[in-house]
Amino acid sequence: MKNKIKSLVMLSLLSPFAVMAQNDPLPSWNDTAPKAAIVAFVEKVTKAGSSDFVPVPERIAVFDNDGTLWSEQPVYFQGLFAIDRVKALAPQHPEWQTNEPFASILKGDLKGLAASGEKGIAQLLAATHAGMTTEEFTKTVNDWIATAKHPKTGKLYTDMVYQPMLELLTYLRANGFKTFIVSGGGIDFMRPWAERVYGIPPEQVIGSSGGLQFEMRDGKPVIVKLPTLVLNDDKEGKPVGIQRHIGRRPIMAFGNSDGDLQMLQWTAAGAGPSFCLYVHHTDAAREWAYDRQSHIGKLDKGLDEAAAKGWTVVSMKDDWKTIFPPGK
Amino acid sequence: MKNKIKSLVMLSLLSPFAVMAQNDPLPSWNDTAPKAAIVAFVEKVTKAGSSDFVPVPERIAVFDNDGTLWSEQPVYFQGLFAIDRVKALAPQHPEWQTNEPFASILKGDLKGLAASGEKGIAQLLAATHAGMTTEEFTKTVNDWIATAKHPKTGKLYTDMVYQPMLELLTYLRANGFKTFIVSGGGIDFMRPWAERVYGIPPEQVIGSSGGLQFEMRDGKPVIVKLPTLVLNDDKEGKPVGIQRHIGRRPIMAFGNSDGDLQMLQWTAAGAGPSFCLYVHHTDAAREWAYDRQSHIGKLDKGLDEAAAKGWTVVSMKDDWKTIFPPGK
Repeated sequence: MKNKIKSLVMLSLLSPFAVMAQNDPLPSWNDTAPKAAIVAFVEKVTKAGSSDFVPVPERIAVFDNDGTLWSEQPVYFQGLFAIDRVKALAPQHPEWQTNEPFASILKGDLKGLAASGEKGIAQLLAATHAGMTTEEFTKTVNDWIATAKHPKTGKLYTDMVYQPMLELLTYLRANGFKTFIVSGGGIDFMRPWAERVYGIPPEQVIGSSGGLQFEMRDGKPVIVKLPTLVLNDDKEGKPVGIQRHIGRRPIMAFGNSDGDLQMLQWTAAGAGPSFCLYVHHTDAAREWAYDRQSHIGKLDKGLDEAAAKGWTVVSMKDDWKTIFPPGK
Repeated sequence: MKNKIKSLVMLSLLSPFAVMAQNDPLPSWNDTAPKAAIVAFVEKVTKAGSSDFVPVPERIAVFDNDGTLWSEQPVYFQGLFAIDRVKALAPQHPEWQTNEPFASILKGDLKGLAASGEKGIAQLLAATHAGMTTEEFTKTVNDWIATAKHPKTGKLYTDMVYQPMLELLTYLRANGFKTFIVSGGGIDFMRPWAERVYGIPPEQVIGSSGGLQFEMRDGKPVIVKLPTLVLNDDKEGKPVGIQRHIGRRPIMAFGNSDGDLQMLQWTAAGAGPSFCLYVHHTDAAREWAYDRQSHIGKLDKGLDEAAAKGWTVVSMKDDWKTIFPPGK
């Protein structure tokens, strides 16, 4: 009885508004259509006895990373990491002063890097992402991500994750979903911090993947990163990565570019209920605004297909109260 | 008070023996050294405050499949599946009556198949494991595994799993472990039934993997299995598969052959506590007895290294009360 009185007193102290805010799993989302669509879908598939009920093991949600969970302008953050690595490794490579794409990078000439084309990018990745053990690479990423700052915002890159998406990840997991990253970015670049930042463990991070080789060094086993590509986890590669790593079809998929289109198509074509969402970068003041013409995160075919198929499109400007985690 | 009396009455009805059996998570294991070693390790790494404590997300346990979780004699069960597929598909391939390795298979001449070597095996796998969509292949596996019987025991293959290992999987999961299969067998052959039989979901099944291709067929996305190999998940390939799919080092590893040695070495070389175990096939009466000279599941270097490093070796004859699930 005493406890009941206490509960009633506590309840009377909370205004209806406070109660609502407390129960709102997505407080950084405005009360616009996307939020309502997400909540309606989750309630539908988690309601026991509903014809749309989905058993817990099949509640698979996949998220693109660059532009969907964190920013990707002016270039993918992994590209900035690679450039910083070239600068750090340059003293051991005097030949880089004259050889492209390294000479351009060391002069700060990103147009020269771009001009080096796919061959130049492959050389850059081979020089910065291969030839070391997986443990050495993980340490390099951890050191960089803990200190490097974004050139425009001055924030740590891990503080440029989207607060509304962090809330969405938590909300889905609280409803029995297993959340996966499915990114064109490098798997070994994301795994070191994805668990701490997104709550997504390494075994649920899928990304572009290089060859690996097991070796004994001084009687101790190591795994060495090779300069070969075994999965280009972009466009048609995303459903392939999903099949290879997860082995069943997601029921929710979240992306922001044409590179995510096949992942959303694959998700939407499942036999049961499905939910596809595009994050549309519409907020030049708080983040960036870009879509059909962008050199990074181009969203063109995807916007058309979302409209045609009734997928949810989030306007960052209109649908998100905050973009980045506050106070960081 | 009433409840307390009831509890005492209940307790008095249970003999000490019954209480022990009820609390024993590994009832099909004899009370010999391997069981004690497993329980001691699990208690050590799950005890809060202990110097050997391992946080839940890092409790990764990896299991070979063939010969570790289910039988593998007289040949890998997936090989028997492939042979049955050749017979089923033969009417559509009149050329198989004369072309090897198919002609030998159709005549029941397994020595002829073996004589066709790696090229023949590759042709067999390409004909039976590629060229169809992932969904079509899953259906084929499900149909076969539900009905095909083992030539010696007459059991369904999924009834030739090891009861003590099923108990071990359950025991580890109850202690916060995530259990993975890491098998030289085909990933797409195991996933359709691993969740039902082992409680291991498809995203925790790692195996030898073929190329995959995303395509649109009549406006519907499909994933097609290609006759290429992207992961040979055996020997040195096992730590590679672990790194690619899990992205962190296991703390427990279970195998039965030299093909598992590198997986056990990789596990044992972790910075924290680790546990490695070999299942030794010593029971010719209840299962099969084989090791250093076997053409399947050869265990030679592994036995020596287990002895040298103090890994646990289970003698199926001496350490397991039962082999297969009773009543099946």
